[in-house]
Amino acid sequence: MTATPAGTTPAGTTSAGRLLAAIADVGRAPSGGYERFAWTTHDLALREWFAAEADARGLTVVTDRAGNQWAWWGDPDADGPGVVTGSHLDSVPGGGAFDGPLGVASAFAALDALRAAGVRPARPLGIVNFSDEEGARFGLACLGSRAVTGTVPADRLLALRDGAGDSLADVLDRVGRAGSGDPTAGFGPAHYGRDEEALARVGVFVELHVEQGRYLADLPPGEEAPVAVGAAIWPHGRWRVDLVGEANHAGTTPLAHRHDPMLDLSRLVTDVRSAAEHAGALATLAKVQVEPNGVNAIPSRVRAWIDARADQESTVRSVLTHLSSSSAPDGSGAGWELVQESWTPATVFDPVLAARLADVVGRPGSDLPAPVIGTGAGHDAGILAAAGVPTAMLFVRNPTGISHSPAELAEEADCDAGVRALTAVLADLLTVGESR
Amino acid sequence: MTATPAGTTPAGTTSAGRLLAAIADVGRAPSGGYERFAWTTHDLALREWFAAEADARGLTVVTDRAGNQWAWWGDPDADGPGVVTGSHLDSVPGGGAFDGPLGVASAFAALDALRAAGVRPARPLGIVNFSDEEGARFGLACLGSRAVTGTVPADRLLALRDGAGDSLADVLDRVGRAGSGDPTAGFGPAHYGRDEEALARVGVFVELHVEQGRYLADLPPGEEAPVAVGAAIWPHGRWRVDLVGEANHAGTTPLAHRHDPMLDLSRLVTDVRSAAEHAGALATLAKVQVEPNGVNAIPSRVRAWIDARADQESTVRSVLTHLSSSSAPDGSGAGWELVQESWTPATVFDPVLAARLADVVGRPGSDLPAPVIGTGAGHDAGILAAAGVPTAMLFVRNPTGISHSPAELAEEADCDAGVRALTAVLADLLTVGESR
Repeated sequence: MTATPAGTTPAGTTSAGRLLAAIADVGRAPSGGYERFAWTTHDLALREWFAAEADARGLTVVTDRAGNQWAWWGDPDADGPGVVTGSHLDSVPGGGAFDGPLGVASAFAALDALRAAGVRPARPLGIVNFSDEEGARFGLACLGSRAVTGTVPADRLLALRDGAGDSLADVLDRVGRAGSGDPTAGFGPAHYGRDEEALARVGVFVELHVEQGRYLADLPPGEEAPVAVGAAIWPHGRWRVDLVGEANHAGTTPLAHRHDPMLDLSRLVTDVRSAAEHAGALATLAKVQVEPNGVNAIPSRVRAWIDARADQESTVRSVLTHLSSSSAPDGSGAGWELVQESWTPATVFDPVLAARLADVVGRPGSDLPAPVIGTGAGHDAGILAAAGVPTAMLFVRNPTGISHSPAELAEEADCDAGVRALTAVLADLLTVGESR
Repeated sequence: MTATPAGTTPAGTTSAGRLLAAIADVGRAPSGGYERFAWTTHDLALREWFAAEADARGLTVVTDRAGNQWAWWGDPDADGPGVVTGSHLDSVPGGGAFDGPLGVASAFAALDALRAAGVRPARPLGIVNFSDEEGARFGLACLGSRAVTGTVPADRLLALRDGAGDSLADVLDRVGRAGSGDPTAGFGPAHYGRDEEALARVGVFVELHVEQGRYLADLPPGEEAPVAVGAAIWPHGRWRVDLVGEANHAGTTPLAHRHDPMLDLSRLVTDVRSAAEHAGALATLAKVQVEPNGVNAIPSRVRAWIDARADQESTVRSVLTHLSSSSAPDGSGAGWELVQESWTPATVFDPVLAARLADVVGRPGSDLPAPVIGTGAGHDAGILAAAGVPTAMLFVRNPTGISHSPAELAEEADCDAGVRALTAVLADLLTVGESR
C-alpha cells in the first residue's frame, strides 16, 4: 500500500514548497492575495487536492460530521488513537500562501520523510484539514474544530449566515447535493456537528504553522532558529460598538445640528489604540459598517468591531476597562458601550509535551532546545487543547513577520527546516511506548 | 379627453399627501426608510404609477433617450416649448417619503387645480419624472438629467456599474427586454443619451422640493412662510482619499510595527470637520471602504470620500487647501492627497424668474414676497439651469430640517401650501405672453 507519493523526489524527500506550488493558483485574486473561503469552488478544489495527495500515499480519507478531512496511515479505530498533524487550507480575504496550507503540505512531506527513513509507527498517523479556520465566510473563526469538538452547538453554527445571506445549513446542503469532489461525498447538514468518533481517534495533535510575527526573525546572532515550539495562545476576544447618529443630508445640515457618528468612530479608533498602549496589549479596530455609507448622507449608524489580545487575561480586561470608563462618545461622561461577541480564554499547551518537542526540534548548530513562544493568533490547535486533546504547535520563521497578507512569507530553507522538525517530532511521538 | 383624475376630490382639489399615500409602501424597508433605486422593481412600480396618473388625466407620456418620463398636457412639438414641473421618484438608501416624490405629486395636484380653476394655458404643461436623481445605484447623482442634457457622455454613463457589478447598459438592456410596464416601453441602451428633442420641449422648468434644512422652520414669528423660492445651488464636489496601510494579523503584530490606515482615517475625519469649521463650509466624510474589513486583519487600505459645499466656490476651495496643506497622515509634513471625483460649480437660477416667483407665491398674511434661499443640495433643476434652461425651484417647509432619512417631513398643510404656490406659479407662466 505504498504508492509513489505525488510531489516526492526519487530520493524520498518532499518539499513543502513543491506541494504548495500545486495549489498556488487556487483562489488567487488579481491583487496577489488569496480568497479561499469555506465551501466555495476554491475551497472544494483544495479539498480535492488534499484527497488526491492522501490517495497518492495510500491513506484513508474520512470527512467528519463537521466537514473536516482526515487522512489516515494506519487504522485508529482498530489500533487506537493516533498522532495527528495538519492545519487548514482556507484563507482570510487577501490572505497569504502559508497561513494554513504550510501545515498541511508539511504534514504530507513529513509523512514521506518518515517512510523514506523507514520509520515503523507504533500507532496510526493522521493528517487533518480543518474546515473554515479563518471564519472569513461565516464570521466565526475555527468553525470546523469548534463544530467537531462541540465547543459551539451545531444549530447555532448552521444558522450562521454569510455575506450573501446564505446560512451554513443552506451551503452544506448545496455542497452535499452537488457532490464535493471529496471521495467521502454525501456530506451535508443533516448530521452536522460534534463527532465523538472523529475526536476519539486523536491521541495527540501537532499543528505546524507559519509564524505570524517576528519573534524568530528578530532573534540575535548566535541564537537564530528557523522553528519554534508553541507554548500558549493568548486570551482574546471580539467586541462590537454601535455608534448611533442621525441620518441627514450632508449638503444642507449645518455642522452644529449634526449627530455624526463618524466623529465618534474617529475618537473610538484613537481610544482603542491608546487603551492598548496603556495596557501593553494588542487592540485593533479593523472592521466597520457605515449606514447608509453614502457620500452625501450623514450616517445613521456606524458599527465597529474591536479585537483585543494579550498574554494575560487581566491585560485584555484592562483594555476594556479603559474603553468603558475613560471615554465619552456623547460628552455625557459615560464610556463606550462594548458588546462582547466572542471570548477565548488563554490556551496553555501541554508544557511537558512542549518541552519534549523543544528538545527534539533543537536549534541548528547548538545544543539548545528550540525557542518556546506564545502567540496572539487563534488556531484549531487551541480549540482541540481546550477540548482536552494533548496538543502542541510548531512555528516556522517568517522574515517579514507579516501574515494575513500577500507579504506573508516563509523561506524555502525554513520550510524544509519545518518539515525536518515536524518529521523528528512525529517520529518521536509515533515510536515511544506511549503517545503520552 | 378629461378623465376623472385619480386622487382628485369631487371639488377638484387634489392633496399631494393623498397621491403620495398611493406609493407609500413601494420600496419601504423594515427600518421605515425607502430603498427606491433606479431601474429596480420598486422604481419600475413608481414609473408605472407615474404613467397611470398621467393616463388618468389624459396626458401623453413620453420616455426620453435618458429614461426620464414626461407627461404632456398639450403638444410641445406642435405648440412650442412648454412649462415643465416635476422632480424624481427614486431615493437614497434609507431615504424619506418627500425628497423627490413631493415634487411629482404636487405637479399632478397643481395640474388638477389649474383645470378646476378653468385656467386655459397659452402653452403646453409638462410633468417630469427624472430618472436616478440620487445616484444611489450607480454612484453619480442626477444621472437622468445629466444624460438628457449631454452633460456627461452616454458611453461614460452606460459603463457605470452598480454594487452587484452590473453596468447601466446591462441594466437598461434587461429593462428593455422585459418591458418596463411603462406605456412607452421599448426603451433600452441602444439610443441612450442626450435627447435634443426632449430638451427643446422645455421652455421653463420649475421644481418643487421639500426643504433639506431648517431655513423656513426657523423663521421668526411674523416672518413665517411655508414655501420659499430657490435662488441658487451651492457649488459642491466630491473627493476621494486613499489611505494605504500594510495588511497584517491583528493578533500578532506589535503596535509599533503597524501601518494601520484606520488611524489615518481617524485623523482625516477630525481634519475634515475642523477644515469645514475653519472655512465656514459644510464638509462631510460619510462613506468609507475598508480592505479587507476583517475583525482580526489590520487593513491594507481604507478609502474615504469627502463631500464639501459652501455658498461660495472660494469657501469650498479653502476647505481643500486646509486639508491638502495642514495635515500629515504619515508624519512627513505632506497633506492629505485628495482625488477629485466630481465638481459642480454654483448654479444661480434666473434671478428675474426667481423674483417673479417670490412675488407670485408671497407670504401668508403679509404683502411680503416669499423668501428666496440658496441650498447646498444638488437637484436636476441645477443640471437643467447649467444647460441653459430657465429654471426655478420652490421649497416646502420641513419641520425637522432632516432629509435623506425617515425623519424627513412636510406637514399636510404645508404640502397644500406648496401645491397652491406651484399652481399660482404655473398659472402665471402658462398664461403670460412669454413663458418668461
